[in-house]
Amino acid sequence: MTRSKVSPDGRIPDRDVAAKLVIIMVGLPARGKSYITKKIQRYLSWQQHNTRIFNVGNRRRIAAGVIPSSSSSPRGRSPPASQHRHSLLNPNAHADAPVQEAASILLNGTHTAQIEEPTTFDLNGTTESSDSQEQQRRMDQSAKFFDPKNETASKIREQVALETLDELIDYLLHGNGSVGVLDATNSTLHRRQLLVDRIKEREPKLGVLFIESICNDENLLEANMRLKLSGPDYKNKDPVKSLEDFKARVKAYESAYEPIGEYEEKHDLQYIQIIDVGRKIVHHRLRGFLASGIASYLTTFNLSPRQIWITRHGQSLDNVAGKLGGDSDLTERGHYYGMALYNFITAKRKEWVVEQETKIARASFPPQPGDHTPPYPEFNQDLEEKNFCVWTSMLKRSVETAEYFEADDDYDVKAWEMLNELNAGTFEGMTYEEIATKHPDEYEKRQHDKLQYIYPGVGGEGYLQVINRLRDMVREVERVADHVLIISHRSVCRVLMAYFMDLTRQDIADLDVPLGMLFAIHPKPYGIEFHAYRYNEPQGWFDEVRDYKPQKTQDRNS
Amino acid sequence: MTRSKVSPDGRIPDRDVAAKLVIIMVGLPARGKSYITKKIQRYLSWQQHNTRIFNVGNRRRIAAGVIPSSSSSPRGRSPPASQHRHSLLNPNAHADAPVQEAASILLNGTHTAQIEEPTTFDLNGTTESSDSQEQQRRMDQSAKFFDPKNETASKIREQVALETLDELIDYLLHGNGSVGVLDATNSTLHRRQLLVDRIKEREPKLGVLFIESICNDENLLEANMRLKLSGPDYKNKDPVKSLEDFKARVKAYESAYEPIGEYEEKHDLQYIQIIDVGRKIVHHRLRGFLASGIASYLTTFNLSPRQIWITRHGQSLDNVAGKLGGDSDLTERGHYYGMALYNFITAKRKEWVVEQETKIARASFPPQPGDHTPPYPEFNQDLEEKNFCVWTSMLKRSVETAEYFEADDDYDVKAWEMLNELNAGTFEGMTYEEIATKHPDEYEKRQHDKLQYIYPGVGGEGYLQVINRLRDMVREVERVADHVLIISHRSVCRVLMAYFMDLTRQDIADLDVPLGMLFAIHPKPYGIEFHAYRYNEPQGWFDEVRDYKPQKTQDRNS
Repeated sequence: MTRSKVSPDGRIPDRDVAAKLVIIMVGLPARGKSYITKKIQRYLSWQQHNTRIFNVGNRRRIAAGVIPSSSSSPRGRSPPASQHRHSLLNPNAHADAPVQEAASILLNGTHTAQIEEPTTFDLNGTTESSDSQEQQRRMDQSAKFFDPKNETASKIREQVALETLDELIDYLLHGNGSVGVLDATNSTLHRRQLLVDRIKEREPKLGVLFIESICNDENLLEANMRLKLSGPDYKNKDPVKSLEDFKARVKAYESAYEPIGEYEEKHDLQYIQIIDVGRKIVHHRLRGFLASGIASYLTTFNLSPRQIWITRHGQSLDNVAGKLGGDSDLTERGHYYGMALYNFITAKRKEWVVEQETKIARASFPPQPGDHTPPYPEFNQDLEEKNFCVWTSMLKRSVETAEYFEADDDYDVKAWEMLNELNAGTFEGMTYEEIATKHPDEYEKRQHDKLQYIYPGVGGEGYLQVINRLRDMVREVERVADHVLIISHRSVCRVLMAYFMDLTRQDIADLDVPLGMLFAIHPKPYGIEFHAYRYNEPQGWFDEVRDYKPQKTQDRNS
Repeated sequence: MTRSKVSPDGRIPDRDVAAKLVIIMVGLPARGKSYITKKIQRYLSWQQHNTRIFNVGNRRRIAAGVIPSSSSSPRGRSPPASQHRHSLLNPNAHADAPVQEAASILLNGTHTAQIEEPTTFDLNGTTESSDSQEQQRRMDQSAKFFDPKNETASKIREQVALETLDELIDYLLHGNGSVGVLDATNSTLHRRQLLVDRIKEREPKLGVLFIESICNDENLLEANMRLKLSGPDYKNKDPVKSLEDFKARVKAYESAYEPIGEYEEKHDLQYIQIIDVGRKIVHHRLRGFLASGIASYLTTFNLSPRQIWITRHGQSLDNVAGKLGGDSDLTERGHYYGMALYNFITAKRKEWVVEQETKIARASFPPQPGDHTPPYPEFNQDLEEKNFCVWTSMLKRSVETAEYFEADDDYDVKAWEMLNELNAGTFEGMTYEEIATKHPDEYEKRQHDKLQYIYPGVGGEGYLQVINRLRDMVREVERVADHVLIISHRSVCRVLMAYFMDLTRQDIADLDVPLGMLFAIHPKPYGIEFHAYRYNEPQGWFDEVRDYKPQKTQDRNS
């Protein structure tokens, strides 16, 4: 995290247009574009860069009357194109009205922790799942609409693309956006030229980055196409017929598809090409820290089925005394927590192998409605031999919680500096009561803005610093194909959860993560499946918390 | 930096063969392979991974009798192939004798701070520059030797390549090596298969990474070829004839060149392809943290001419009191240092533009002997408008030293957490005398091994932690094309200098970096040009220290 004259909080300042970025996605349908788009948005938002996805498909559906233009997102984030539709008539109409910040999910409570819906064609993942079949029928969304020879349709699509781009540029120039992602196929040179010309016309300083997703692997492609069957265009329809129609739609695009290459290279355009989900990656002419950060992040993807577990250490002596930070040992209860954690995780690890094998055995062709098991044969190898990493901080209470894993050769235990608790500077070892009494100003400052607050003294940190130092941790978690259990501390768990659950800036520092909570994250091709467990101390076991929702902590000091 | 059961210091443990890596370079001559190779070695060594380059060209010259096999490197690091030659008859002969660690440059004092020699065909950059022309003549090194149809020569080259590879594998399996780089053209599929087969035969768990450098840009190629004229094969010969011969040699390779591609992709081999010095980069199938770390690092290259300046803050109140760490303000003398620094850098910045413009105007064709000005026209644009970044830590004494830059809009001042001084944990604010009196054990531990020592208490760091947190800083310095001035602290300057000057592990923590020293680093296509300046307080200016050599500090506490 860096601060400077123009950017005291390390974010891209509004006046620095040259640092802002338009990302233009490129690729045929079912190439995982929206998957990539959403990961980028989640990652950049977490790194405190205001980022929004602008989905051309959504606007197309609105144009075709599938989605009523008054519909609004129940999630509060990334409102669908329709909400700003009036601005298209006069792109600068609300130049002074900054785009509204994402609403706090802790306040409106509509966040769905368990994201089960494939959302590839959808901006919010929630808007269209409630659409009635009545609405679906209103649009001719069969393969014919996507035939490049269908000139009327082609013009509509071009118009829609440019309108969506205008909205994106408004967000960067007149909203408080740093990155806008144009999510569409953009599969012809003509279209891409049109987009670049429009951007240059409106603000030549804006950065432009193409990200193309290519899929040559037949298995991957088949898997991606199956995912579409439960998407907005095919939901609840005959899966075999739908798959046929979808394949015809892709064929229509394919006939006109011009991959990124010579033209872009000759014109020195920045691009990232992702082939077969990161098996091969091409970077061209990347400039600026945002583009290179995105490139680094995109190299870490893997689709291996696995589990990521996050919890805090067991109870420590300082926990009992209510002291901040420090480096105390576990209490006896803390050691018991370590044992229960070991037993529970070991059982869950075995269960997982059985589940995966059953799923693979059950995968059917032709696909059944609701069949969510894409056949990624490569990633399903060696399920039993999958490595299990246990990562602690370098502080005693974290290391000691992993003692039972340490004793078992089937776990790989490692201590990381990055996972250390937020450093409370000169307040280390004090209680909140002491701080309130001795340093009322500091106490008040922290209460007022916990996210921006930095503890005084050498080494003192704030949440922004923790977010910054966990960037490499998140990349490492994304990179390895192994299971991972992270045993860390409150602020670190909050920041990691913020990444995985896509929490808004306002929510990070207030997320309730008490001792004894254990979170499980299952990365899926269509998003993240999420489970929460609570420590059952008398039984030395964990109980699942059904329908867990992230909550605001009740402890005003924590 | 991470520690674990098997690796308390975060390095790749000897037993973990699967984490070790053989890097096989691929590419025609004059594609910057050795430049890349040396940067990788410097970077990985700095990150505490034992890394060594094995140059097939050197062994070829020995085989052809150009280099006497008893010659040894004056630099003490990376001994030429000849030193281990006997081991080739019996690769396991000295299995128990670990390869000797690089000797300390501070002790033997032979380090040449100003690396002026192009070293592209050379392992040490120093070995052959002293070779007499007598020796040069002994080898038939004209283009004929490199003709793929010359079967005798072809066999010799294959044999030499395998012997060099064996030596590399010995280094990984029986020495303490983590990464070995095979520096040669390896330009045919046949040769690369041969190498992979030999590696798999000796130890199937070893990682293999191909790095190919491709150059399509005619200007770059011409520039690279000119650099060869002062290399070992052509030194002091007629430049025009040499260039012709060299071009013929490259043609001979070209006729048989098979770039990395389908074959490697079909066989799931890891590779990185670098096209036109990073204009375009391809990653394929990268696995493991070493390969992905190298890939990240390689994306940051740029050949923009520019200056990188490193200095410490001006005198602080705590400096006067002899206290460790802390966050005190500058003294009056410290503020004057900031002013002198601003005046001097501003003058140097102007001088630099004039120098560059003169150089460009003087570049001649046909090239003159010693002509070191490769025509990279693209990088020489906008010399005057080049941005100038001033980066401080977040501590007051660093920020205050930049106050005059802050007031000038022609400088871009930014404060970075990463640049903060090594955190002395519970010893922050104490003097070394106090530590020696109150904590004699800790004082002794630090004296015994300053590199590994970690200050006690929450947040306490050691040099290894600082090296780790500066990894991103070094990547950022390498990435930006701007001038950079870093105003930081003793340990941070030591670690940064260790990277740029390729200091050995033993020397980092003892490097003499007193207040008032100012270092200038000019990245060049053939290495680094280095200058040192000392603050002249009465004159408010800086004097150049000619022939500066890194020195061991005389202050046993510092």
